[in-house]
Amino acid sequence: MLTLYYAPNTCSLATHIALEEAGAAYEAVRISFAAEEQRQAPYLAINPKARVPALVTERGVLTETPAMLAYVAQCYPQASLAPLSDPFAFAQVQAFNAYLCATVHVAHAHRMRGYRWADDEATIAGMKRAVPRSVGACFELIETTMLQGPWVMGAAYTLCDPYLFTLAQWLEGDGVDLATCPRVIEHRARVAARPAAQRAIAQELAT
Amino acid sequence: MLTLYYAPNTCSLATHIALEEAGAAYEAVRISFAAEEQRQAPYLAINPKARVPALVTERGVLTETPAMLAYVAQCYPQASLAPLSDPFAFAQVQAFNAYLCATVHVAHAHRMRGYRWADDEATIAGMKRAVPRSVGACFELIETTMLQGPWVMGAAYTLCDPYLFTLAQWLEGDGVDLATCPRVIEHRARVAARPAAQRAIAQELAT
Repeated sequence: MLTLYYAPNTCSLATHIALEEAGAAYEAVRISFAAEEQRQAPYLAINPKARVPALVTERGVLTETPAMLAYVAQCYPQASLAPLSDPFAFAQVQAFNAYLCATVHVAHAHRMRGYRWADDEATIAGMKRAVPRSVGACFELIETTMLQGPWVMGAAYTLCDPYLFTLAQWLEGDGVDLATCPRVIEHRARVAARPAAQRAIAQELAT
Repeated sequence: MLTLYYAPNTCSLATHIALEEAGAAYEAVRISFAAEEQRQAPYLAINPKARVPALVTERGVLTETPAMLAYVAQCYPQASLAPLSDPFAFAQVQAFNAYLCATVHVAHAHRMRGYRWADDEATIAGMKRAVPRSVGACFELIETTMLQGPWVMGAAYTLCDPYLFTLAQWLEGDGVDLATCPRVIEHRARVAARPAAQRAIAQELAT
């Protein structure tokens, strides 16, 4: 039995959807960012990084979305969420997810979490102003060179799809003109139509 | 035959060392950041992200250090660079590398690459000021909760080790007090003593 610690409107949705796609037995536990539960002792004992997601397994705790997604794919191979036995194809999946984690998510985080990289209000405000441009540039690259269609890696649905879907939820809030990335928006609708995504989202909204 | 595109003093050193550890047949090609080769058409045709590293394989191009490292481990299993058949242990390796990629490297990049996340000089200067604090906090977490010793994952040398070694090269330049992370500094010396690291570094300095 796995336990996923999540917060609504964060990247934890990607792993939540993957667990649903895999048919995994898991429990989802909501962490309240409003109450700052992620910075309090009970949660810090699970994840000292003070962030979601965290996945508690019978062997210990896992963090970091790309690692957790690959773990779900390896533990539930029958769901075919990644080309595990093809090193090149698996590396392509991992490279896409690393780009989402280290470039796209990071650009987005400069809107709400600027305090990570600055100590004064003027700098934090300056970072916020650049978010439409920096996040927009990421999605332009995804739109024009990375998203193969209909799924990220082409014909097969993989771990990349729930992760891109999750980060694409933030486009409007980040001030990106949706007309610049129509294929990303179509992909977002395509993932939203899948029962696994609908179950994960319904669970996050209900609790 | 693989071709690694690298630049000195960048994160490409991690993959360079891993290729040496694996005994891989590869060629290393230097990209001059001084001449801005990474932004010119020949290199953009290889990696449209305009960054190093990139690894050209007979199947196509791979980017993103965590993905390339796992690829090297999968292609050269006899080098035992990752616990590939143990999903939980592999996810721990991947989680550590994702933290280096998306949190540690990103904090560091605010010193020299602030233009990624800001459009004005005052904001870029504000980001630079916070780097000793933000990078220092990352290495404090590595020092106290993540680095098991003697290697990152404990008794076995893995993909995490050349990657941590590579990012720890930047500590002095980032203004981090080395007295705050003595175990990281010992680890850095331990990797530096390995013949594979010495070969990769010598090759980067010689070309």
